[in-house]
Amino acid sequence: MPKKIAAFGEVMMRLQVPGYDMLSQADTLRYSFSGTGVNVASALARFGHTGYLVTRLPENPLGEAALAYLRKLGVAPPFVGRGGRYIGMYFLENGFGARPSRVTYSNRSESSFNTAPQDAYDYNAIAREADVVHFCGITLAMNDLVRTHMKTLASVAKANGRTVVFDCNYRPVLWGDAGYSLAKPHYSDMLRLADIVFMNEKDAIHLLGMKTDRENWRDQVSELIPAVAREYGISVIAGTHRTINEDLTHSLQGFMYKDKAFVFSRELSFAVYDRIGAGDAYAAGIVHGEMEGLTPDVTVNFAASAAMLAHTVAGDTPMASEPEVLRAMTEAISDIER
Amino acid sequence: MPKKIAAFGEVMMRLQVPGYDMLSQADTLRYSFSGTGVNVASALARFGHTGYLVTRLPENPLGEAALAYLRKLGVAPPFVGRGGRYIGMYFLENGFGARPSRVTYSNRSESSFNTAPQDAYDYNAIAREADVVHFCGITLAMNDLVRTHMKTLASVAKANGRTVVFDCNYRPVLWGDAGYSLAKPHYSDMLRLADIVFMNEKDAIHLLGMKTDRENWRDQVSELIPAVAREYGISVIAGTHRTINEDLTHSLQGFMYKDKAFVFSRELSFAVYDRIGAGDAYAAGIVHGEMEGLTPDVTVNFAASAAMLAHTVAGDTPMASEPEVLRAMTEAISDIER
Amino acid sequence: MPKKIAAFGEVMMRLQVPGYDMLSQADTLRYSFSGTGVNVASALARFGHTGYLVTRLPENPLGEAALAYLRKLGVAPPFVGRGGRYIGMYFLENGFGARPSRVTYSNRSESSFNTAPQDAYDYNAIAREADVVHFCGITLAMNDLVRTHMKTLASVAKANGRTVVFDCNYRPVLWGDAGYSLAKPHYSDMLRLADIVFMNEKDAIHLLGMKTDRENWRDQVSELIPAVAREYGISVIAGTHRTINEDLTHSLQGFMYKDKAFVFSRELSFAVYDRIGAGDAYAAGIVHGEMEGLTPDVTVNFAASAAMLAHTVAGDTPMASEPEVLRAMTEAISDIER
Amino acid sequence: MPKKIAAFGEVMMRLQVPGYDMLSQADTLRYSFSGTGVNVASALARFGHTGYLVTRLPENPLGEAALAYLRKLGVAPPFVGRGGRYIGMYFLENGFGARPSRVTYSNRSESSFNTAPQDAYDYNAIAREADVVHFCGITLAMNDLVRTHMKTLASVAKANGRTVVFDCNYRPVLWGDAGYSLAKPHYSDMLRLADIVFMNEKDAIHLLGMKTDRENWRDQVSELIPAVAREYGISVIAGTHRTINEDLTHSLQGFMYKDKAFVFSRELSFAVYDRIGAGDAYAAGIVHGEMEGLTPDVTVNFAASAAMLAHTVAGDTPMASEPEVLRAMTEAISDIER
Amino acid sequence: MPKKIAAFGEVMMRLQVPGYDMLSQADTLRYSFSGTGVNVASALARFGHTGYLVTRLPENPLGEAALAYLRKLGVAPPFVGRGGRYIGMYFLENGFGARPSRVTYSNRSESSFNTAPQDAYDYNAIAREADVVHFCGITLAMNDLVRTHMKTLASVAKANGRTVVFDCNYRPVLWGDAGYSLAKPHYSDMLRLADIVFMNEKDAIHLLGMKTDRENWRDQVSELIPAVAREYGISVIAGTHRTINEDLTHSLQGFMYKDKAFVFSRELSFAVYDRIGAGDAYAAGIVHGEMEGLTPDVTVNFAASAAMLAHTVAGDTPMASEPEVLRAMTEAISDIER
Amino acid sequence: MPKKIAAFGEVMMRLQVPGYDMLSQADTLRYSFSGTGVNVASALARFGHTGYLVTRLPENPLGEAALAYLRKLGVAPPFVGRGGRYIGMYFLENGFGARPSRVTYSNRSESSFNTAPQDAYDYNAIAREADVVHFCGITLAMNDLVRTHMKTLASVAKANGRTVVFDCNYRPVLWGDAGYSLAKPHYSDMLRLADIVFMNEKDAIHLLGMKTDRENWRDQVSELIPAVAREYGISVIAGTHRTINEDLTHSLQGFMYKDKAFVFSRELSFAVYDRIGAGDAYAAGIVHGEMEGLTPDVTVNFAASAAMLAHTVAGDTPMASEPEVLRAMTEAISDIER
Repeated sequence: MPKKIAAFGEVMMRLQVPGYDMLSQADTLRYSFSGTGVNVASALARFGHTGYLVTRLPENPLGEAALAYLRKLGVAPPFVGRGGRYIGMYFLENGFGARPSRVTYSNRSESSFNTAPQDAYDYNAIAREADVVHFCGITLAMNDLVRTHMKTLASVAKANGRTVVFDCNYRPVLWGDAGYSLAKPHYSDMLRLADIVFMNEKDAIHLLGMKTDRENWRDQVSELIPAVAREYGISVIAGTHRTINEDLTHSLQGFMYKDKAFVFSRELSFAVYDRIGAGDAYAAGIVHGEMEGLTPDVTVNFAASAAMLAHTVAGDTPMASEPEVLRAMTEAISDIER
Repeated sequence: MPKKIAAFGEVMMRLQVPGYDMLSQADTLRYSFSGTGVNVASALARFGHTGYLVTRLPENPLGEAALAYLRKLGVAPPFVGRGGRYIGMYFLENGFGARPSRVTYSNRSESSFNTAPQDAYDYNAIAREADVVHFCGITLAMNDLVRTHMKTLASVAKANGRTVVFDCNYRPVLWGDAGYSLAKPHYSDMLRLADIVFMNEKDAIHLLGMKTDRENWRDQVSELIPAVAREYGISVIAGTHRTINEDLTHSLQGFMYKDKAFVFSRELSFAVYDRIGAGDAYAAGIVHGEMEGLTPDVTVNFAASAAMLAHTVAGDTPMASEPEVLRAMTEAISDIER
Repeated sequence: MPKKIAAFGEVMMRLQVPGYDMLSQADTLRYSFSGTGVNVASALARFGHTGYLVTRLPENPLGEAALAYLRKLGVAPPFVGRGGRYIGMYFLENGFGARPSRVTYSNRSESSFNTAPQDAYDYNAIAREADVVHFCGITLAMNDLVRTHMKTLASVAKANGRTVVFDCNYRPVLWGDAGYSLAKPHYSDMLRLADIVFMNEKDAIHLLGMKTDRENWRDQVSELIPAVAREYGISVIAGTHRTINEDLTHSLQGFMYKDKAFVFSRELSFAVYDRIGAGDAYAAGIVHGEMEGLTPDVTVNFAASAAMLAHTVAGDTPMASEPEVLRAMTEAISDIER
Repeated sequence: MPKKIAAFGEVMMRLQVPGYDMLSQADTLRYSFSGTGVNVASALARFGHTGYLVTRLPENPLGEAALAYLRKLGVAPPFVGRGGRYIGMYFLENGFGARPSRVTYSNRSESSFNTAPQDAYDYNAIAREADVVHFCGITLAMNDLVRTHMKTLASVAKANGRTVVFDCNYRPVLWGDAGYSLAKPHYSDMLRLADIVFMNEKDAIHLLGMKTDRENWRDQVSELIPAVAREYGISVIAGTHRTINEDLTHSLQGFMYKDKAFVFSRELSFAVYDRIGAGDAYAAGIVHGEMEGLTPDVTVNFAASAAMLAHTVAGDTPMASEPEVLRAMTEAISDIER
Repeated sequence: MPKKIAAFGEVMMRLQVPGYDMLSQADTLRYSFSGTGVNVASALARFGHTGYLVTRLPENPLGEAALAYLRKLGVAPPFVGRGGRYIGMYFLENGFGARPSRVTYSNRSESSFNTAPQDAYDYNAIAREADVVHFCGITLAMNDLVRTHMKTLASVAKANGRTVVFDCNYRPVLWGDAGYSLAKPHYSDMLRLADIVFMNEKDAIHLLGMKTDRENWRDQVSELIPAVAREYGISVIAGTHRTINEDLTHSLQGFMYKDKAFVFSRELSFAVYDRIGAGDAYAAGIVHGEMEGLTPDVTVNFAASAAMLAHTVAGDTPMASEPEVLRAMTEAISDIER
Repeated sequence: MPKKIAAFGEVMMRLQVPGYDMLSQADTLRYSFSGTGVNVASALARFGHTGYLVTRLPENPLGEAALAYLRKLGVAPPFVGRGGRYIGMYFLENGFGARPSRVTYSNRSESSFNTAPQDAYDYNAIAREADVVHFCGITLAMNDLVRTHMKTLASVAKANGRTVVFDCNYRPVLWGDAGYSLAKPHYSDMLRLADIVFMNEKDAIHLLGMKTDRENWRDQVSELIPAVAREYGISVIAGTHRTINEDLTHSLQGFMYKDKAFVFSRELSFAVYDRIGAGDAYAAGIVHGEMEGLTPDVTVNFAASAAMLAHTVAGDTPMASEPEVLRAMTEAISDIER
């Protein structure tokens, strides 16, 4: 049965150099609008749910364009506030082979989202409407204003019996030199409020300061994740492990820890067209499985296939429908469909 | 010595989303005009022959654009009639890796070609002018009107001592639920009229209802194709076997049965840029070999190389000249030509 | 106070050659999705209302793309059904100066909309939800199936006390040789159900067979429109008169007849970027004025300004917000806004 | 009744900066292939005749592209020779308003056409096949090799009773400092061979050294053109007069002198999209009128309308069909055609 | 004799929607880099001088792209510092006819230029190298840090006997509600340091609080400008008056006050392709005239023609060379140059 | 410490068909300007040196565009002369898989560079300013005029104690049938003047007529290169060996012979985006290492990494900065940088 999911997060304008040129070579950009919240809400809408975004956009042509784009993605707009003056942006230059892709951020600290005043969001209305509320560690890195919105909304949601989802998504560059020590208390707050958490063994070690003697990632996950779940009272913890192969294909394996048991997905290997946003597809897949009451085994493989497909479409935002993910779970690569 | 080949078939407008976007992401399309007949006539023109197309286009800007495009491809226009109102279309979204390409057809049932009246074509003039007349199973799936044109033209050509070529090209989606049982009598009619036929072991099994206990495709071909040739009195039967490899390259091997003997081409493996129309390049290669009196071994390898090259150019229609195919038959992949 | 408007009509795919090339010169198309209903619903959404579209789209990538585009335009999707196989299309080649623009239609008779079965729409749900229901004469030209949907929905809406809007939009090419005589009874049915009607003096003369000795369009309007209103019991009749000037600018004047009185807008002259859809902007402006209870004088000038602005944006669908129309009503052409 | 026209001339590659950028601002070019001969042959093909081009193209990818483009334009290829190494090119930067358009030539002196050896063309075959042979003063400026081809072909055509057409098309930059004195003997040779000549009063004065006291162009034409016709024994002389108006529209009036009588076309004023090649459309219009036996009055107005329409399409080559020119002769500028 | 001009100012990234789409309709942007300083330095480089830019760019791909673009424009880079993290940006949507163009700024307050530390620029080295130093009122609106750089550099330049140029360029939106009262003291400081000033009658009235009873702009200029020159000890004051005509062409007239005498340029009327940056072309023209010792009459007409041409090229930055401006001063609009 | 390098060579206009179309399929080209000298000067500028180009460009819009492009690339323009009429050009069609890329040259023999008169370059000024002067065997193939410039400049540079670099770059097509015998004396002259030479075993065998019985390229290099160094008195000889692998990746290994010792770089394997210009990146890397006094081992690996990265960017000209090359030398292929 379809559920209602509200994702809290900033909308970023993505400005991508077409093809494989660098900014100093080209003169055109292709733009779209995304963000973890956008991606998760849109992906869940394609899986048949209602995907709300809780955010704030400026009242100008950029805000208008962002809102139109969100609607096109299938994101439900009633909790999108308007106000402030700016929208966060990032520039993407595609790498090729030995030359890595590059992301350059514009100043997002004065964006409409990051300057949203105290009364910007109606926490209770959101908590009433949504079955699930989704948060992301990128948002947690912004400033106290935003963190207050985030923790308050999570608390109100929890108090209303809603499922709280938190994706750690730790980005070193956003936390500066103080890094993990600055981040840890905020992450702890969110982990304590969360029912479903996305993290991996590195988050446990670096963010939460846990220790392990094991070397293999699966061993580390197996040791650390149950400890995190126990400590913070989390029902479900899921994550992925990515390998970049010599031939530039990627391999991805997902895991999910629930009811004191691990399931691991098949390891999928695939060519990559657009790397960004694949983690959000995985997260949406896990949330979908949980909402639909699928078995952990089906859920984790569904999520991994959703993540794989997200690497094959342009833009940050996953575009695969539920039947398309299901087919990718089961079928060999096929010839043209006609 | 160059020959004159007339191909009977519909011109389709191909509307392709550039790059790897889906229709719901993009806002531009690149268009061209193709069809089995177009592809075969154009390919044979590049091999030095005269390639006529026998078809019908509307008297409107779309028909004008299609005709200009056919001329550009080197197709000779005297047997292109004008009339009716519509042109068939299909939309192509390129897949990437784990995401398959998708073809979506517009309504072609009321196209100028599929509504051509009884007196639309001058069968005798065509049979007088052309040394070879080519037909395709896609056309056979349209409607009774078109099937009558097709069988009549084939009969008149045969009566005039022309070589009749028939490519089975069975497309399940065009025949609906009744499928093979609906198609079989029409295919039988065409096979009986044909001198050169393109088919493979699956056609023999599903279309013609033949049976085999063998499992390997080469074994199946070796058992079934001679039986077909015998039953329908066909001089030459040729076909290909395609494998899609893990790394998304394709492997292709061609065969040709003539004078009770099989020849198989080398198995070619290659990267694929544009999949559609490669079968028509193979067919044109076989017809070229037969017209030029090449040995079966040369013919089947020429055709396989032509098919391989057709995977490397944009659009449905093969673009390689005879010297280019000959070079691809013999040389290693080379560095840039300058 | 914002209202809810439901527009009933077909979604067409518009495929436009970029710049001033003809189809036989170019190889790319820009596509979008529009239609009278789309344009009116979207325009009213930009004026602050909720704009529903009542239509039917295929369950394939084209239908998906159309639906995403409608959402982007701000059209509310709950009454968009899915089913059938095709979408209507038209190709647009921009003219330049002495060379007129050309529109070429693909076959729309088998579109999802034009083959919608009896139970395709929930008339009662629509009539419950919408304050206003909008219909268009283009739809009336399709076939009996569609006409039945149209008249039934109009009747149910009227029975529920909703405002019924009908835009005559007579297109000769759609009615064939029988033309006006074929159309008249259907138009009469709709006029009798309508509260607000869009028509002009030519519709009165040709469609309804009325007669006048006057020669000037304003004189003809002044004589004929009150007679139409009386005969069919219509509250509001509005329309426009267009002149194409020597320098290729257009001049437009709107009129509105209500409570036995005429108001005419100022005559506006302006350069034209995209001609298609301007009439729908005018209609949306009149409906907006009526819904908001504006005076006829303000309403008719608002509608004319909305129509003028619709000539300045790419695509069929008006994009101007209410404040933008208000500013265009009052201000001189301004220098760049920064 | 359709005739066969052979035009002798060089194919140039046109490389145009899109929009209004200059070469130092942009990084893309749009290319096509044209030339006076190309334009005249193509225009006459659109009027229903067969248009041959007599030229020479290199055996390389540029020659291949040129030939495909000629076919697309409807030019008949049997007299297009292959050989040599280069193709002439010119770069076009569109001006805007006060900034004029700029044309920059690449080196054409070593093009395949301008280095065609003595036996490159089969003069007799051309003269046998074509009813009319067309030449242009641009070709006359190239070198002695080309001039010999040109005069020989004209002589052979005349000797075979074919109609010889010569368009003066004097381009100062091609003749260098010696200019008119260098050009005059060659022009005289061609004028003596020609039946139909395109020139204006400036050609008579500067090229042929004639004198007049009159100041108005119509007066000058009226005095000088009959003298030219008498001196060189020319049946038909036609030309145009162009004015560039303040608002950047152009005005064009055509004249035709035949049987000792002048006819002048209506003066047409129109917006200009692509200026190049309009004179060739005029020439094709006059040739068409003469071939079809139209009255001079109809012919000159047909030619002027063809020239006007040629200003409205992209590229050097006229694209209007005979019905399109006829409609432009008689109708007001119309609203969109649908 | 060529001079060396250093312009102090911020580099902005301009992101323009191609054609006439709005941000909510399109998905591509064309980008370039500009700013008053960039435009003036580049324009003077095209007039044969050395044009330095004094600015600061981030050490990231955007800064790299900006620097490459400046070099392409002919701006000399030795005084371009690197540091900080961001670059200012603005989005441009082209209007059409009745729909005005729109500029939307991103947050520039934290740009590399606007956060340049105290030791960012070597004032003495700049004053040693440059004959002329140019400043702009837009820069003056930024913050105290930037204003200190600006006034210090102007003082050092003046102390070294260099010519100080100041363009008032008052932009209301940058000064907020306090507006003129906030700006006046800073403008006064700069006016006192300047030798050549660009301003008009509105600046005198609003910025400097001067009063006049006259109504016509030329009368106001004639009364107020001499008073400004007197009060602030300015050698040359120049400016322009712009009118937007009904047909969307612009008319521009320049003035220059020097040695207690006014000269006015001819009033030029022209079509507009890209409005932004035309004022900078005018300023560069005046500076060029003064540096070259031209008479005021020639100078002001040269500057006005340079401004006119700047409206005809894409991008903010003037592209016309000295000979191109000279030709535009004297010649009628010409046919294509070839 | 940064050095000053002057590269002598022709600027070519590169006109590339976008994507994988052939010239006969497409209608747009992307253009840039390059050449061995351009590539080497630009690459060394990105490594922190000053890169002059010694060349000659026409005084027309193409020359203007080339100069702007050189500036954008970071090439220092003081030794770029202006004069002559043409610029050399080449067309590039990208191959795909089994279909090789194709380069088609326009006529470069009359280019501004190849017709530069005796006094075109100030040899002494160049030799005074530059620490290093770079020459290329492509230039040597042009004509006697150019060869005289080349050898004179090399002699003057050597006489002034500058480092002379010579890249053999033998292109068979430029030397015609006489080939190696025609080229050898000119190559010998340059080798005798050179301090640093780029060549490989094939050059030693074919160009210099040396013999070896060994079969492996490393063995051949080890035998022949020391002999060349001895005979011609060359300090440093470097080169590369390229293998094209089955999966279309390339493998590259560099060598450097100095002080009687060989060093070989690691063999690098990588995907190729743009093959042209990679050799120039290698040369620039070696020159950089020598100028900076790096050990041969570091130098040859730096050069090989620079060459590898040059295969990953669009255009002929290397774009990698020194830190980017250093990182590519040491790190594994990384995930997206953000």
